[in-house]
Amino acid sequence: MPGAEQSESVLARHLRVLDAFNMDAAFLTLSQIAARTQLPVSTVHRLIGILEHEKLVERMPDRSYRLGIRLWELASRTPGALGLREIAMPFMQWAHNQVRQHVQLGVMSEYDVLFLERLSARSAVVNATVIGGRIPLAASSSGHVLLAQMSEDFVERLVAAGVPRLTSKTPTTVEEIRAIQAQVKSQGHAVGNGLVHPDARGIAVPIRSSDGAVVAALGVVVANDDEPAGPYVELLKRAARGIAGALRASYLPPGHPGALPGARYRALVNSSDKSMEYFEQLGGLGR
Amino acid sequence: MPGAEQSESVLARHLRVLDAFNMDAAFLTLSQIAARTQLPVSTVHRLIGILEHEKLVERMPDRSYRLGIRLWELASRTPGALGLREIAMPFMQWAHNQVRQHVQLGVMSEYDVLFLERLSARSAVVNATVIGGRIPLAASSSGHVLLAQMSEDFVERLVAAGVPRLTSKTPTTVEEIRAIQAQVKSQGHAVGNGLVHPDARGIAVPIRSSDGAVVAALGVVVANDDEPAGPYVELLKRAARGIAGALRASYLPPGHPGALPGARYRALVNSSDKSMEYFEQLGGLGR
Repeated sequence: MPGAEQSESVLARHLRVLDAFNMDAAFLTLSQIAARTQLPVSTVHRLIGILEHEKLVERMPDRSYRLGIRLWELASRTPGALGLREIAMPFMQWAHNQVRQHVQLGVMSEYDVLFLERLSARSAVVNATVIGGRIPLAASSSGHVLLAQMSEDFVERLVAAGVPRLTSKTPTTVEEIRAIQAQVKSQGHAVGNGLVHPDARGIAVPIRSSDGAVVAALGVVVANDDEPAGPYVELLKRAARGIAGALRASYLPPGHPGALPGARYRALVNSSDKSMEYFEQLGGLGR
Repeated sequence: MPGAEQSESVLARHLRVLDAFNMDAAFLTLSQIAARTQLPVSTVHRLIGILEHEKLVERMPDRSYRLGIRLWELASRTPGALGLREIAMPFMQWAHNQVRQHVQLGVMSEYDVLFLERLSARSAVVNATVIGGRIPLAASSSGHVLLAQMSEDFVERLVAAGVPRLTSKTPTTVEEIRAIQAQVKSQGHAVGNGLVHPDARGIAVPIRSSDGAVVAALGVVVANDDEPAGPYVELLKRAARGIAGALRASYLPPGHPGALPGARYRALVNSSDKSMEYFEQLGGLGR
């Protein structure tokens, strides 16, 4: 791939600047970006000028910067994130209306759960999940559900990479994680009491694609008390079955007898049936 | 800005490839990307290799590509999009539980409404809104709310750029748009009967920042029948007041007596009070 090395470094440097922004630092000045990226201020100045021109960052009145809406707009075309979330959302709302605590959707990303959606309530229990945030697989009930299907090799690499111990309940050895895998496989769900915080309990179930592979985890975070987990597990399993069915229907090819209206748009959009028919008649969503 | 021109073209070219993906085309082959970007296949091949290496695109088993989850993960740190949506979400859920049609949140982007969130129901009326999608300002009740505060100059530029006529109800002249601005200003909300589709009615209200500027529009899309709009307007105004209050509190500096727990994280996260306190104690969200 001639020339790739050079171009790669240009894109990678722009990404280094974008990566400097995170949940703890949504607004950054030039010198803060320089400190975080370990790039000279003059380089950051040049890169941020280009990023601002492309609307990937926005300059605030106080001269700090934040990530730009164009980045979010581009990202809203990501089937693996927004698409999955769109399909899951009605079932998540249904579960949330009953639980009134946290309901969340996560996928595996390296050795973490990456959370695509989280519905909460002001009075809900403490929960470390943020949308677009990560929690180590071993330290989360959603992570345990995602881990259950992984090979011994994967578990060894994960442990070798080091499992951060968030509380005394975090499993950190290959043996502990293998025991959790076996338990999740046999019972079909995961319960984590105080894995992240002693006051919180995570309960999660798998969402499976048509070939049986686990594509995501659906979970609740509720108070870590003596209430039985059973009712939450049943609620989550019902919602997860609904999501799995909607996922299967969404990825049926247009023309298939089981395909839903607007099938070709369902990788990104899950609106009402009439809306999906409208998109189909229109032959496009415009932009 | 020496060297900017050259770097800019590298980033701009990568963005051209990312921009080829949209709601209508969430999955693309190399030759489809080449056709859409009007770049040679060899160039697309090189650019996509770099984008794949950086995880901004993902290759599917059938060798097509889709936008990658890393792009979405980066974008989840955008205060102007996810941040606003996080603050609005509990109020949107509240309104949606009562309306059971579409509830949506939009901001102005050039001459369009860009929709940040949309809650729907399977049996809801036809609606063209998709998350991350755009509708011309003049053709949407949310757009009318956002237009109301704009100058005569802006309206002239908008009309000069050409207003697409989605239905016979779309205002397309400066005079028609100015009449709508006056109406929205006097009544404090917008009602669009059949602006996008004859079966649908959009009703929207402004969400104001503490200085009175309209930062977003909150709307419903319901059946275009003879039901009075009043109850929807009242519901939306109540939700919009809640969002405006939460926005103001979220942007109070930490240490301000009115600041909520975890104030410094509220630009991106709006979880339960206990979760926000936890983030504050932790001194960070990790990554």
